[in-house]
Amino acid sequence: MIWCRFQSGGAVSFGVVEDDKIKEVSGSPFGRWDYTGRTFAVGDVALDVPVIPGNFYAIGSNYASHVEERGKVRGTGAKYYDVPRVGYRANSALIPHGHSIMKPRGSGEQFQYEGELVAVIGRKARNVTPEEARACIFGWTIGNDVTERDWQKNDPTNLRGKNSDTFKPMGPWIVTGIDPKDMRTTVVLNGEKLHDFATGNMLFDAGQVISAISQTNTLHPGDVVWLGTDELPVNIKPGDTLDITITGIGTLSNSVVAE
Amino acid sequence: MIWCRFQSGGAVSFGVVEDDKIKEVSGSPFGRWDYTGRTFAVGDVALDVPVIPGNFYAIGSNYASHVEERGKVRGTGAKYYDVPRVGYRANSALIPHGHSIMKPRGSGEQFQYEGELVAVIGRKARNVTPEEARACIFGWTIGNDVTERDWQKNDPTNLRGKNSDTFKPMGPWIVTGIDPKDMRTTVVLNGEKLHDFATGNMLFDAGQVISAISQTNTLHPGDVVWLGTDELPVNIKPGDTLDITITGIGTLSNSVVAE
Repeated sequence: MIWCRFQSGGAVSFGVVEDDKIKEVSGSPFGRWDYTGRTFAVGDVALDVPVIPGNFYAIGSNYASHVEERGKVRGTGAKYYDVPRVGYRANSALIPHGHSIMKPRGSGEQFQYEGELVAVIGRKARNVTPEEARACIFGWTIGNDVTERDWQKNDPTNLRGKNSDTFKPMGPWIVTGIDPKDMRTTVVLNGEKLHDFATGNMLFDAGQVISAISQTNTLHPGDVVWLGTDELPVNIKPGDTLDITITGIGTLSNSVVAE
Repeated sequence: MIWCRFQSGGAVSFGVVEDDKIKEVSGSPFGRWDYTGRTFAVGDVALDVPVIPGNFYAIGSNYASHVEERGKVRGTGAKYYDVPRVGYRANSALIPHGHSIMKPRGSGEQFQYEGELVAVIGRKARNVTPEEARACIFGWTIGNDVTERDWQKNDPTNLRGKNSDTFKPMGPWIVTGIDPKDMRTTVVLNGEKLHDFATGNMLFDAGQVISAISQTNTLHPGDVVWLGTDELPVNIKPGDTLDITITGIGTLSNSVVAE
């Protein structure tokens, strides 16, 4: 099943995508919902961020090649963690598929994307095992963890290094009933494929990450957990277009503009 | 004006507090609202967290005496910052006035409160001056930035050190039209006054903090900014009761229980 959130006539609704149609629902897939009977062509509406999370988690250092390559760039060597390294991201930075990533005034050249699988929580989870955690996942979407690397160095809380406005594209929608083990993530910059990695190659899989969070923090329906990226992202600049595709989900496309 | 959020008959509503009555409203003070005509005695309803923020900011190291004393405890010396040191907190950790703070299994002795003034945003703010930022504040409430100090040391994202379930009491309500410059913050533990400091003694005032955030991050109505604590908090344990009072706002009271 494919769940989207879309704007039509000033209102924002959830909808179910079937072929090139959206069947509008009232309510939310994270609570009660019903079909309204209204249907839209996908091309006739503006897709919005597929969910506004109550809690927005992201893990860093979750693919070996990314850990190794970033360690070289930083000159610190690869740094692995015994437990998932989970932090917070800001709702204010979210933009949907198709909206522009704004490169801020004063930002440097090391302005980069990170193509990521995102787990969307469907059931309350507290103190769950990895296996129980997997059963709490509602579905999957795609995130782009845009980062300004110079700011990131001196910004332990990631306030602006990772959470400036527009730094968190997420979408285009949420797909249920698929298995991340068999997915591939590709990143295409201006039509050229730069990355193509096995999405399931994570150091900590979604179940392990959610289980770890849940030892102290209750996860709620609609919360999102971004699961990290692989390989070494390159710099992007105004005028560029990024297409991040994950097998079975779709493509998250965003262009870059200057502030 | 005093704005609360409360539960009655399974529903959660905003309300306006006058004397010992709550006048229920439909909608939200951060959008459109109207009186429903229903009135409750404050004692007859359960107060809820006064707002669920879209973005939940908190500044650290924002009072000189706290910076000095914590520096001694850590053995690192006082560490001051040139710009506000702002991070994120988690909605999943919020509890209202009157609910219990749960000391987690496996947590250590260094389990502490931090009594803080909280600015609640009422108007969108992006790239604003400190003076403009002050005009974007809707009102003020009280927060308790509960912290497990051992976890905090190895937890740069504050995932569990500051955001375990129940670690963020906030309330009892939001008061508008008051000036933080003239407030005092007192912290009373089991009936004994431990702290009594000038709330306005901040290194960065609310306007400066919001202005700094707004250079890259848009603040939205309903967002909250926790403004730090002064002096050196002591350890708390199951059975303790904390009363944090800020002049002109009220008292946020929470007891501690063991997980």
